[in-house]
Amino acid sequence: MMANYQFNSDNGAPICPAVMDALISCNTGVETAYGADHYTERLNAVYTDIFEREAFVFPVPTGTAGNGLALGALTPSYGTIFCHRQAHLVTTECGAPEFYSGGCRLTLLGGEHNKVTPGALEQSISAHGVGNVHHMAASTLSFAQATEAGVTYSPEEIAALTKIARQAGMKTHMDGARFANALVYLGVSPAEMSWKCGVDILTFGTTKNGTMNAEAVITFDTNIARTLRFMHKRAGHLFSKMRYMSAQLLSYVENDLWLINAKAANSNTSRIAKALGRCEGVRIVHPVHINELFVAMPDTLQAELQAVGITLRPWQVDANTQGYRIVTTFCDDPDLIGQLEQVCELHKRTTGNDRLDSLSLR
Amino acid sequence: MMANYQFNSDNGAPICPAVMDALISCNTGVETAYGADHYTERLNAVYTDIFEREAFVFPVPTGTAGNGLALGALTPSYGTIFCHRQAHLVTTECGAPEFYSGGCRLTLLGGEHNKVTPGALEQSISAHGVGNVHHMAASTLSFAQATEAGVTYSPEEIAALTKIARQAGMKTHMDGARFANALVYLGVSPAEMSWKCGVDILTFGTTKNGTMNAEAVITFDTNIARTLRFMHKRAGHLFSKMRYMSAQLLSYVENDLWLINAKAANSNTSRIAKALGRCEGVRIVHPVHINELFVAMPDTLQAELQAVGITLRPWQVDANTQGYRIVTTFCDDPDLIGQLEQVCELHKRTTGNDRLDSLSLR
Amino acid sequence: MMANYQFNSDNGAPICPAVMDALISCNTGVETAYGADHYTERLNAVYTDIFEREAFVFPVPTGTAGNGLALGALTPSYGTIFCHRQAHLVTTECGAPEFYSGGCRLTLLGGEHNKVTPGALEQSISAHGVGNVHHMAASTLSFAQATEAGVTYSPEEIAALTKIARQAGMKTHMDGARFANALVYLGVSPAEMSWKCGVDILTFGTTKNGTMNAEAVITFDTNIARTLRFMHKRAGHLFSKMRYMSAQLLSYVENDLWLINAKAANSNTSRIAKALGRCEGVRIVHPVHINELFVAMPDTLQAELQAVGITLRPWQVDANTQGYRIVTTFCDDPDLIGQLEQVCELHKRTTGNDRLDSLSLR
Amino acid sequence: MMANYQFNSDNGAPICPAVMDALISCNTGVETAYGADHYTERLNAVYTDIFEREAFVFPVPTGTAGNGLALGALTPSYGTIFCHRQAHLVTTECGAPEFYSGGCRLTLLGGEHNKVTPGALEQSISAHGVGNVHHMAASTLSFAQATEAGVTYSPEEIAALTKIARQAGMKTHMDGARFANALVYLGVSPAEMSWKCGVDILTFGTTKNGTMNAEAVITFDTNIARTLRFMHKRAGHLFSKMRYMSAQLLSYVENDLWLINAKAANSNTSRIAKALGRCEGVRIVHPVHINELFVAMPDTLQAELQAVGITLRPWQVDANTQGYRIVTTFCDDPDLIGQLEQVCELHKRTTGNDRLDSLSLR
Repeated sequence: MMANYQFNSDNGAPICPAVMDALISCNTGVETAYGADHYTERLNAVYTDIFEREAFVFPVPTGTAGNGLALGALTPSYGTIFCHRQAHLVTTECGAPEFYSGGCRLTLLGGEHNKVTPGALEQSISAHGVGNVHHMAASTLSFAQATEAGVTYSPEEIAALTKIARQAGMKTHMDGARFANALVYLGVSPAEMSWKCGVDILTFGTTKNGTMNAEAVITFDTNIARTLRFMHKRAGHLFSKMRYMSAQLLSYVENDLWLINAKAANSNTSRIAKALGRCEGVRIVHPVHINELFVAMPDTLQAELQAVGITLRPWQVDANTQGYRIVTTFCDDPDLIGQLEQVCELHKRTTGNDRLDSLSLR
Repeated sequence: MMANYQFNSDNGAPICPAVMDALISCNTGVETAYGADHYTERLNAVYTDIFEREAFVFPVPTGTAGNGLALGALTPSYGTIFCHRQAHLVTTECGAPEFYSGGCRLTLLGGEHNKVTPGALEQSISAHGVGNVHHMAASTLSFAQATEAGVTYSPEEIAALTKIARQAGMKTHMDGARFANALVYLGVSPAEMSWKCGVDILTFGTTKNGTMNAEAVITFDTNIARTLRFMHKRAGHLFSKMRYMSAQLLSYVENDLWLINAKAANSNTSRIAKALGRCEGVRIVHPVHINELFVAMPDTLQAELQAVGITLRPWQVDANTQGYRIVTTFCDDPDLIGQLEQVCELHKRTTGNDRLDSLSLR
Repeated sequence: MMANYQFNSDNGAPICPAVMDALISCNTGVETAYGADHYTERLNAVYTDIFEREAFVFPVPTGTAGNGLALGALTPSYGTIFCHRQAHLVTTECGAPEFYSGGCRLTLLGGEHNKVTPGALEQSISAHGVGNVHHMAASTLSFAQATEAGVTYSPEEIAALTKIARQAGMKTHMDGARFANALVYLGVSPAEMSWKCGVDILTFGTTKNGTMNAEAVITFDTNIARTLRFMHKRAGHLFSKMRYMSAQLLSYVENDLWLINAKAANSNTSRIAKALGRCEGVRIVHPVHINELFVAMPDTLQAELQAVGITLRPWQVDANTQGYRIVTTFCDDPDLIGQLEQVCELHKRTTGNDRLDSLSLR
Repeated sequence: MMANYQFNSDNGAPICPAVMDALISCNTGVETAYGADHYTERLNAVYTDIFEREAFVFPVPTGTAGNGLALGALTPSYGTIFCHRQAHLVTTECGAPEFYSGGCRLTLLGGEHNKVTPGALEQSISAHGVGNVHHMAASTLSFAQATEAGVTYSPEEIAALTKIARQAGMKTHMDGARFANALVYLGVSPAEMSWKCGVDILTFGTTKNGTMNAEAVITFDTNIARTLRFMHKRAGHLFSKMRYMSAQLLSYVENDLWLINAKAANSNTSRIAKALGRCEGVRIVHPVHINELFVAMPDTLQAELQAVGITLRPWQVDANTQGYRIVTTFCDDPDLIGQLEQVCELHKRTTGNDRLDSLSLR
């Protein structure tokens, strides 16, 4: 059992009332199993509307399943996936891409804020060689929107990466575990943040933003969808009572629920970042785009927070610094954030400082 | 979209109120993710009590995932699994065992009512050869309790099979998609129906019996559990909001819910079998043990049922016969069953017959 | 150690002098490794001439490697291969197709003389269903030319099969372990027996016909070749001293060596079949096309053969009959065949019979 | 086609006369196929003598196959292999370990001269965590003796590494592509350089030292051997005419052939290193232990060598230096080495320098 931290993870939150209502309201009567129900039959159409292009939606229970399936569908067993060395699928998914592809390899790139840069990608592909049989086949680019450091790519940045991938004969996967959080931060449309900038397949996360273990793999490519249909079933992700997955995924995008939740989560982090950022000795490590904040702070401040019941999750925020990771959700206790703000306010008065770290908040 | 059949599948039922209550009541407050929550921490202990032996429980979303994981944990990529040619994992799981094991093969056996017999198993292992390097390694026995024909094995029958497997150096998997239904039919304990008769690993189905896509792989072997921990995560079955899986699996066995539900489902099939079985020209194809009934009937009877709104699902019940499959659940409409009984009663009066097919009901 | 049988297997023969000469003569001076040598650089061109179409040649050490690679290149991990239940890749290759594909399944067909028939193939594909996600993807047809029963398909028969496969969206593999033996029996060209009748990829056997463990996968499809390049290296079949493989494969087709060897081997079986076929009580089980003979005979005849030092390899020639398998090679001892003929001649005089079993010799 | 370099690779050499004689002399008469021949039956016994412990020998055609098989036998699909980032199996085997294990991952370590150090290994295992289910299972240590930089580990150094591996529950693989070269350099016994210092499995290279594509996987562990038997066949490495592999592997160790060849190859590199090392501006990058030399030199010297027909293979010898790789064999032309020595002698006179770089030659 992990220690009890505040602002520990958006995976720790309950599911939001509207999604629970959808579950309750679909829990009536008999439906045909394995996706031939009245909810699932609307799924592709609803997401096609949202993405403004024919979308094939495959519900999965976890982001690891989603990333594994998506990458397995793009990458032959003898292929390599170019991705950031801090990508979630590298660090904490127990080799899901290798499993789902049947033996691929990850080629790891560096880059600030866990972002893959065009330069790093080009150099890595070039060093690898596209047709060198002693190496694995250069197959796939994967990147996270937002990154594990909570930082987004602009559509233009994404387009620059997918262009390089396409020119090397590769396909592109986006790990959208926090897709909605990135979307509302950037203020763009789902289409603009996906296929319009060259993304072939998407892990579309909803669990962290209010649902009950309901992610989806979404692709816009008929051939990939054909492959996915078999892989999805074979791995055990074609639920017998699929209505409960589909009802969630439908309710998630109804009435802008997903955007409202994401905005709330982002806003909570923003408040916390502002409060902390003005305190002397606090260093906000990555630009604050979404609902994640990586921060180093003086022990005194940390102790003052702990005194009011706010214990933050320790995190190695860069190679040499032990700091904290803060992740907010759509349903954090506003009083808790208020308390944090108060502690910071008092701390500033004590230390006699009041900085406005505007840059790090962009 | 499939046609709308009555008594079509236990996968089509909603989830039972007690389980929904458990979901609602656990949907509050923050929990640590990935299984470090207060529900999951009780899971192994509760099932250890039920099975009277240390049990390692791995929640999975589907029976296909459960069978794949369980068989993958027992079977090396170069191994073969002995199973009935009508086993669910052979006919409708899109190669999950091959996927999870990384390339095993299924060696198919015949046998009445989809049951593996000691004779067929011994002969197949002997023909295969245990150490013949031109063949694959004889690794695993898998059987379903109850079978896809709705027929159970007695503990003694299971023990006879697992003994043969063990003597050939093999491990045994039970596909318990309808574990509870078999259990209440046989009137034995979970221990008597699993490890006490030599089962090493179990797909423990609960979805068909009232939960929302919550199956579990259960093993009693520490080494298998160690392997499973990695495979389970790697395949994407370690849910981030695991509490919602564990809360279901806990509520499922509280207050005998699982046994009550299974008895209700079995009883519904039993009523239907009795009603149909007394009609002239009706043939009940397999012994009726649980909540499944495979039946051939005259077109007249079928038409009379359809006239009151009961359309049965067509099913090839044996090599040469088109009949019907009936699957009941814990929550069938009793009026519908009453209507079916009435139709049968009327049909008997018309045809002037009243048989008591006691044998086929055992 | 197996018992010492006569006419036991074409795998037991030494390599033929011309191939050994090629090995000796290429064993001089330095060559660049991994296929960039002066022998390998001619390989594709020479086989392109022989097959009258651009051919991509991948040397492999065994037929199992060849079949595995070829099938792995055609079949996704979620695909199924339709093949005869007695195919070599089913019975004695320890799951190579499952390994190389990363988890495919074999769908087994019946058919006389181990031949896949259009009817059986159509029926099996139809029962399987092409897009049914609960089943695996219908991906590949594999058949052996000649079959393990020593029987060939005519080009028309092959074309009928590959047409069915193509219409179901499948590719076709030919296991040509005894390609040359079939070719000279049919009197057709390599092109007529491969791509002209729809074969996409070929395991081209040469070891049984005179070389030192030198088989090849040959494809006529650029996309398959691109996949194969990586799979071939990855599995460890890109030899560092590739010249010794290529020199053999070049010498094999120079001066019609392969055809001369295959004719000799076929002719030896033909002589034996004629001699045995005229004896009372002898049953030749399959048509005799190539260098394999499956035969049942009276114990008296078997004893007479053994008395002159000819011990045949016992073989279950059909479901109920224990008989013998005879496989001849390009280099059998002619005196041994002469002795066999003499024994048969004497046997006939003793039993007073002289049949001419012309039908069974086609 | 690669350019024609001198001292380019020990893979480019022909096979040595004694091995060719063994091939010729075994090419007579009929042998039982698939390893049941008179040569293969002696293989384990002969290598058991050499290694002073029961050895299980599995012939394979390439080092890539050997490494793949050996690592696949040690590493579950969910396991990770700790190895140097410049290991051959990382850089130029197209993902063979991932293929043979069915999806493992390589965890890459740094270290001078491509050597894994105890410190780096301990730190990496500790950062990875042994039982952390979000990571892959820490399974295997692999190192090369000698490394790709031509540098050996002492038995004590090996023992220090295998002890760390064992304590973490891991097994150890040695890539012995140049096992003999390392052995004669160190002057130890095969046992002292393998199982006595904790090596569980070995890729035993012979091709670079005089044979025709004949490597072997050797293990001292009965359980690993049992697994290997199936994997070996399944991957297509159980040769039908196995006698030609076994005859080579037997002749290789008869009359100290392997040691004589390795000494000759090492000695040739030593001569070249001495000649070059005395020239002004020459930098020998790694200690010279075996038959590999990595060297940077002035363009003038390179031109003088080229003028007498000695074109060396360009090689990036360290992060910032373009130099040359020289690999000698058991059968280099002594006149060529003599010429190289003469060029160096003349060069020294011209530049007026004569250094003795004793350190780098140890």
